[in-house]
Amino acid sequence: MIILGIDPGSRATGYGLVDQSGSDEQLLAADTIRLGDTDDHPTRLKHIYDALVDVIDGHGPDEFAIEMPVYGQNPQSMLKLGRAQAAAMMAALNRDLPVAQYTPKEVKKSVTGNGNASKKQVRFMIQSILSAEEKTFTHDTSDALAIALCHGNRDAHDDSESYTGWASFVDANPDRVSE
Amino acid sequence: MIILGIDPGSRATGYGLVDQSGSDEQLLAADTIRLGDTDDHPTRLKHIYDALVDVIDGHGPDEFAIEMPVYGQNPQSMLKLGRAQAAAMMAALNRDLPVAQYTPKEVKKSVTGNGNASKKQVRFMIQSILSAEEKTFTHDTSDALAIALCHGNRDAHDDSESYTGWASFVDANPDRVSE
Repeated sequence: MIILGIDPGSRATGYGLVDQSGSDEQLLAADTIRLGDTDDHPTRLKHIYDALVDVIDGHGPDEFAIEMPVYGQNPQSMLKLGRAQAAAMMAALNRDLPVAQYTPKEVKKSVTGNGNASKKQVRFMIQSILSAEEKTFTHDTSDALAIALCHGNRDAHDDSESYTGWASFVDANPDRVSE
Repeated sequence: MIILGIDPGSRATGYGLVDQSGSDEQLLAADTIRLGDTDDHPTRLKHIYDALVDVIDGHGPDEFAIEMPVYGQNPQSMLKLGRAQAAAMMAALNRDLPVAQYTPKEVKKSVTGNGNASKKQVRFMIQSILSAEEKTFTHDTSDALAIALCHGNRDAHDDSESYTGWASFVDANPDRVSE
């Protein structure tokens, strides 16, 4: 099952495609769509939409997962985030993909075992899980991959012990925590 | 020039189509898209998008105007509003319509002369301007028409004296203020 994960934002929207087969995950593609600072907001939304339609048409994901709202941001930021989310969702909906939503806490918990993990910790785990240590993912890209993996975890092996968390990972791999 | 005005919301999205020719405005169509309380948010966004694509394809508007954020709402409301806005904008953008945005204050000021006019005052003026006194517009529908007229005013006769405001309207038409 191919899962497209999205970390939406009006300045940068990360996407990550993972092929999940049982407890085996393979990285297919991942990148960050950068939106022009000088572009007006409708132009950015169209850019997000068009880029994701291309990704969907190019890779044929079966499912789509997106990061849900975080609380406590200011209203204007939330409005812009809602717009970016919806532009991404419309790309999925117009390609008949089911849309799943996860909170940042759910995503972090699923991938690192800790709902309050840092972005750096999330990226570290993503690189390890996907055997992509050589990749230099942006935080937006690794967050998008984390969302895809979170969705895969939920679908495929809810009770799996595959990822027992950042703390146990560090315990088991002290030499790999270099930053 | 046919203008499609949108008052977006995740529970109800109003739309209004006005044919503007100089200082003459004609009502073409207007209604409110109601979103199911039981539907999840992606389903509502798809509903808004599909309904507006049908409106655009059916009436061929030349321009698209939408109400911009209001400040001071809570973050969760703004997120939902941003999503509804973006679903409507994507319908326009995917049909190559330019997207204009107006604040509620600009819209009220343009139509009634008072940036703090009530929804009832806006509806009253809309019915008068469009010679649609017999229509029972919802507030969402009349707000959408107000946005279309605001855009038309800006395009067609920025310095026009056509609408000199609610106060002067009431002065001139005391018998028509019945509510």
